[in-house]
Amino acid sequence: MKMFEIVPNFSTSDKNVINKLSDEIKKYGGNILDINVDINHNRSVITFICSKNVIDLLYSMVKKASELIDMDLHRGLHPRIGATDVLPVIPLFDSTMDDALEISKIIGEKIGNELEIPVYLYGKSANSKNRREISYIRNMKFQYEDLKLHITDMKYKPDYGPLSVGKAGALLVGARDFLIAYNIYLNTDNKNTGNEIARSIRYRNGGLRYVRSLSLFIESENMIQISMNITDYKKNPLYRVYEFIAMEAKKYNVSVVKSEIIGLLPEDAITATLNYYIRSNLNSKKVLEYNILTNNGYK
Amino acid sequence: MKMFEIVPNFSTSDKNVINKLSDEIKKYGGNILDINVDINHNRSVITFICSKNVIDLLYSMVKKASELIDMDLHRGLHPRIGATDVLPVIPLFDSTMDDALEISKIIGEKIGNELEIPVYLYGKSANSKNRREISYIRNMKFQYEDLKLHITDMKYKPDYGPLSVGKAGALLVGARDFLIAYNIYLNTDNKNTGNEIARSIRYRNGGLRYVRSLSLFIESENMIQISMNITDYKKNPLYRVYEFIAMEAKKYNVSVVKSEIIGLLPEDAITATLNYYIRSNLNSKKVLEYNILTNNGYK
Repeated sequence: MKMFEIVPNFSTSDKNVINKLSDEIKKYGGNILDINVDINHNRSVITFICSKNVIDLLYSMVKKASELIDMDLHRGLHPRIGATDVLPVIPLFDSTMDDALEISKIIGEKIGNELEIPVYLYGKSANSKNRREISYIRNMKFQYEDLKLHITDMKYKPDYGPLSVGKAGALLVGARDFLIAYNIYLNTDNKNTGNEIARSIRYRNGGLRYVRSLSLFIESENMIQISMNITDYKKNPLYRVYEFIAMEAKKYNVSVVKSEIIGLLPEDAITATLNYYIRSNLNSKKVLEYNILTNNGYK
Repeated sequence: MKMFEIVPNFSTSDKNVINKLSDEIKKYGGNILDINVDINHNRSVITFICSKNVIDLLYSMVKKASELIDMDLHRGLHPRIGATDVLPVIPLFDSTMDDALEISKIIGEKIGNELEIPVYLYGKSANSKNRREISYIRNMKFQYEDLKLHITDMKYKPDYGPLSVGKAGALLVGARDFLIAYNIYLNTDNKNTGNEIARSIRYRNGGLRYVRSLSLFIESENMIQISMNITDYKKNPLYRVYEFIAMEAKKYNVSVVKSEIIGLLPEDAITATLNYYIRSNLNSKKVLEYNILTNNGYK
């Protein structure tokens, strides 16, 4: 089956708004798997799968978000440029990356033209190498407010849509592989320490490839959170990321309090990490429910 | 759906015999999930699920094994009393323990009467407390050869079938909860050390509850294997068993080389153990495939 996972990041933590967005997704046949609301980030991630009406669904959802979220009023820890801030399209099962690419470009163009929202392609959909990483248009130092002022610069020219930013902001859309969003909390409130540890895991500083990191101070927990995206969990498994951060934290006499997965985690990412810790031989087929539900039987 | 997992242990490692037994299982609609062949134990475990024709399937399978396996010729490391040595019936999804109990007694009686194989009930199906553990009738010091001589003793009276043992031996059948069969290999060939470590984890020696253990010397690997059954993985999670053995092994300057799961592992056993190691918050619903395949969507 041609199935896609869609993981929109919305600039809101308002339950009422999230419910309306969820209803919109369900109306078009999307099957919601997970909703993560982060009050500190003032940001929510809805993970859903869909296999038909994909363009109609995405269009309707982004339109609804643009009506319900006013970026001029939005404050939050996480960098953002729009109401629907990021819209990743991930191929699942029989879908290919090309299928996901096609969808990202069709929906990007439609949103740009019809909703008059500037749209930026990223990931596999990027039209140039320097636009693959989201940070080219959205980072801690360049967000919604900055884009508003600078969108007419050639450097920030959107792939689709107008050269002006309204209250719905702009949108990043892109096809990509499955990504693990992973946060690790440390028993320190020292922002410099957090920044150093987040820096240490970045590839350009000698750290790990396929890991993006940010250090955030989470006021409600009075703790530093190292917020990460693992963009290739097969090449950089979860255990390595966890142990890397724990190791670097030791340098500052800091330790890991807890970690959390935002959204979902593929079965093979779980078994690979378990195999590391208990030196075992598990794969997805050894998981009772996976085995029964995929119903392939013994080969 | 009324579904059962059946995990017969056969006293053979002959691929030809295993193929014939598998065919018999499939013929009656059984869906084989896993086959584990242990040459050193000269023993195989076929894990399958079924939801209809359960009695016909089990009868036909046990009959086939009794025709193909001659216990007088069987040698192997693991204790055994019959061709189909143990026949556990585990309720899955909508089945209850009572459903599994009923099946174990019907099939036990049918095998005893029609195949003239002595049948012993164990686990939840046991008729008395002292027959709950398999070791009452099968252990390192009392196996097929011994039962043949002593079956007329009151102590060894079968629940069903004759007071004599043929070439197919006897059979243990019982309803039980999901059990994790877990082996840990240690970098030692010292049998005394192995026995001491296996002893240390047993409840009666101050160790862990819900864990049965044996130490076996695996010639092909030149290593000691601590062969365990975790009978309640919710109360004694996998990580605790692994870490316990690793800890006790240290006393002898020995360490864990690898571990292996025989058969299948439930999703929640995996996430619980992962959560321990990376201090995370996973549950089955956070696993991508589980979430999609159970298709429950977000509640």
